[in-house]
Amino acid sequence: MASSLIRGKHLLTPAGAGVTTLYDAAVYQEDGVIKDVGPYQSLRDKYQPDAELGGLDYAIIPGLVNAHHHGRGVTTLQMGACDDCLELWILAGWGRRPCDYYLITLYTALNMMASGTTTVMYNHPQGAVATLQEDVDAVLRGFRDAGMRVAFSSFPRTQNRVVYASDGEFLSGLPADLADDVGRFLAAADMSDDDYFAFFDDTYRQYHNHHSGKVRVLLSPANVQWNSDDFLLRAKEYAARYQTGIHMHLMESAYQKDYGLRTWGKTPLAHLHDLGFPGPEVSFAHAVWLTDGDIELLSDAGATVCHNASSNLRLKNGIAPVNPMLARGVNVAMGTDSTAINDDDDILQEMRLVSKLHRQPGIDAPAISAGQVLAMATANAAIPTGFDGDIGALEPGRRADLLLIRLDRLENPYLDPDTPPLELILGRAKPQDIAAVIVDGEILLQDGAHPRISQAEVLQELREQLAHPLPPATQATRQMATRLAPHVEQFYRTHPPTSGTPHYAYNSRI
Amino acid sequence: MASSLIRGKHLLTPAGAGVTTLYDAAVYQEDGVIKDVGPYQSLRDKYQPDAELGGLDYAIIPGLVNAHHHGRGVTTLQMGACDDCLELWILAGWGRRPCDYYLITLYTALNMMASGTTTVMYNHPQGAVATLQEDVDAVLRGFRDAGMRVAFSSFPRTQNRVVYASDGEFLSGLPADLADDVGRFLAAADMSDDDYFAFFDDTYRQYHNHHSGKVRVLLSPANVQWNSDDFLLRAKEYAARYQTGIHMHLMESAYQKDYGLRTWGKTPLAHLHDLGFPGPEVSFAHAVWLTDGDIELLSDAGATVCHNASSNLRLKNGIAPVNPMLARGVNVAMGTDSTAINDDDDILQEMRLVSKLHRQPGIDAPAISAGQVLAMATANAAIPTGFDGDIGALEPGRRADLLLIRLDRLENPYLDPDTPPLELILGRAKPQDIAAVIVDGEILLQDGAHPRISQAEVLQELREQLAHPLPPATQATRQMATRLAPHVEQFYRTHPPTSGTPHYAYNSRI
Repeated sequence: MASSLIRGKHLLTPAGAGVTTLYDAAVYQEDGVIKDVGPYQSLRDKYQPDAELGGLDYAIIPGLVNAHHHGRGVTTLQMGACDDCLELWILAGWGRRPCDYYLITLYTALNMMASGTTTVMYNHPQGAVATLQEDVDAVLRGFRDAGMRVAFSSFPRTQNRVVYASDGEFLSGLPADLADDVGRFLAAADMSDDDYFAFFDDTYRQYHNHHSGKVRVLLSPANVQWNSDDFLLRAKEYAARYQTGIHMHLMESAYQKDYGLRTWGKTPLAHLHDLGFPGPEVSFAHAVWLTDGDIELLSDAGATVCHNASSNLRLKNGIAPVNPMLARGVNVAMGTDSTAINDDDDILQEMRLVSKLHRQPGIDAPAISAGQVLAMATANAAIPTGFDGDIGALEPGRRADLLLIRLDRLENPYLDPDTPPLELILGRAKPQDIAAVIVDGEILLQDGAHPRISQAEVLQELREQLAHPLPPATQATRQMATRLAPHVEQFYRTHPPTSGTPHYAYNSRI
Repeated sequence: MASSLIRGKHLLTPAGAGVTTLYDAAVYQEDGVIKDVGPYQSLRDKYQPDAELGGLDYAIIPGLVNAHHHGRGVTTLQMGACDDCLELWILAGWGRRPCDYYLITLYTALNMMASGTTTVMYNHPQGAVATLQEDVDAVLRGFRDAGMRVAFSSFPRTQNRVVYASDGEFLSGLPADLADDVGRFLAAADMSDDDYFAFFDDTYRQYHNHHSGKVRVLLSPANVQWNSDDFLLRAKEYAARYQTGIHMHLMESAYQKDYGLRTWGKTPLAHLHDLGFPGPEVSFAHAVWLTDGDIELLSDAGATVCHNASSNLRLKNGIAPVNPMLARGVNVAMGTDSTAINDDDDILQEMRLVSKLHRQPGIDAPAISAGQVLAMATANAAIPTGFDGDIGALEPGRRADLLLIRLDRLENPYLDPDTPPLELILGRAKPQDIAAVIVDGEILLQDGAHPRISQAEVLQELREQLAHPLPPATQATRQMATRLAPHVEQFYRTHPPTSGTPHYAYNSRI
């Protein structure tokens, strides 16, 4: 439809750390752009939409933005790796069964849209270098066909790929046959800095702003321990030259923080600060182990943190200090990292987890507000994606990305007038309550069904592909990873994380 | 059906901190009692069941036990009170809209059963004393008609009912008209110790082991700050005399811990220890603020802790030190406290939250195991209910309380053979995957539908009741609570919780 008027009993859009709530309001959109937002009756009188959607049984919120994600679709747990300490979990992932990236991306996109995600910060996991461009093409076709907005980046690990120490040094301590196998495995994933930036340039030219304007291409160092300072500085320079963003992991585990302390005598963030790296174009996923000083540096730099509450718990990384970040004015976004608490990509559940996880004990102790959580999944998350200004709020001039949420189940059998609509949605809404997911004014999911893609067919195709025997190369990688695991464990045992004074005191030994 | 054979691809039952997993196994039950558990084919050859259920598309686990709950059905959020610091949230609850306890209990029971809860430790919230017995009768009729097993207790607050200080002293500091109103409100809820124990005796005689053996009646002090030492000792003596259990709140908030420090110069648990109170018959809900010393005392006493992960986060109480409790051999159960993270009573979601919340950073740091979480919601939770030995595991001689979980969605499109069945269920199962909820061999929910009760009709009746205008007395109580709130806040501001060294270091300021 070229134009539509979308009506809700409540219309909610982020306003700083709060929320603007309109009663019986509507969004009027033309050709995918929001033209007007206001009281339903006045918009009804003013425009002649091709279609009307929603009504007084619905709430309208902006399309949600998942600010850190790796696709995957079929989860790591389904692929045979249980939750573990991040560093061992990554190792188990080496033996992940390969799968068609196009199908996987369709499946991932449908899963994400089911809970209202309309834009994703997709960070392509390190795969086979030989097929990288082909894989990326498949991924971006998948998002295009699903209709989802995507901020794309791909990260290369170019050093310290087995543990947080030089590959050569670590391999030299392994039994010779194991070292040989691991060496060959790593060599197959070798990517020079030049190769990476040439790949970025290609991808940027081919996709940035393409697919109906639904793609942005960003740079992505993997993390400070996984790339050289030269790489980081070159990424910074490219970001300026291409006027795009940088998305990267940082200080996800205590071991990653300790790598900085060992290597530079300071935290990774402090080291990045010395390099002049953090800035408004940079977003850091996880950032669990930020110190007070790091938070100040981040705030001063205007950088974004993409919080991943579920993933941080599942992979034994802890709880990111979101409250002190918010207090210091850091832009905090959120995402599921393909490792959401329910092993799906439910962003509503993730918002709820975030809203409950950061409630510090004591009457005057900080507790994240409902408005802050909404902003983390909308306006704040839009900033690092490259779609800032286009998405993240329901305002004239922005793209018409929004959700219609059915209120019936949430208010049944009763809702007290004292319960604010945002608290109701944040507290109780589930994917089943999403009546429509709208991107660029187009309904992409209506009661869970996509206009062009059959989830059942996608699943059936995936099932067939995955029913084949495990490829021998994957089988060999798994066996190698199993042999390697005790050595990796031993490395981290001899480099135990230092502990300090937690930001949050959630219990007390004394 | 008098007898049935229930088959699963996986049969999972707790075994200490681990789990026993059988492949293609079955439970054979007669008249509600498990007669045999073993390989399907051998049981098929051995028995002539009236009916066969399940198959290779299902997993079987014991019925789940929600070890701390207050009913409510219509949630506090729906009733107008947003999540807040416990002490203010309780105050907001004073103005809760009254509702028919029978309907509310039917609704609560259906909600709980939808995620596989078959037994509940129901702790009747303090309501009107004048109608207490009538309300309790309605509650127990509700559970009976739903078919749910219930460990019933009712708690009275007999002191320190507004803040954690004497009512008289606190009221004397209020404006006179407010003090009068609050005084009258409290007087209406006055219950002497004698009245409480007489009420317990009546309830015990009328219901304990009644309703087809599905009811146990327990004692329940409210908490150390809400009852006198005399009350606690009398409860202990009654428990011995009636051979039943004691269930109570303890050290839920840091303020409750501080009450002990102010009053006795020691933690509430240490004070209870001085009284000789903790023992195997005692279960403590919450216990967030236990010190190392408290955990040792609990372990030595053989008492149970009922962990409430969601509630503790929502009400700004923190995270209970479950890992050190488990390490010291404390029996830890779990429940949703009618305040589950999704504002429903989803015990599968709660198990998942527990399994993710207690994963301490570092390769060798404690992380709760899948088997421990299963035990917390089954075998461990059975102990304080009074049904110990009857429920909590799939073993001959126990009641046939179990769940059939459909595996299709969990394994779709793929499941690696390396993923253990319990990790799969704990990681991914949702209420929609529960094919059947069975209590005493009877199917109480089949694909969400109850054989005798229509959830739609219950909701419709509740909707009609709740559509009436707010009763004037409730309206007046709300207004009083609103006037009172700043004074309560001020009390806690002048009694800030002391902080210490957290059990869990989930982040670090330095």
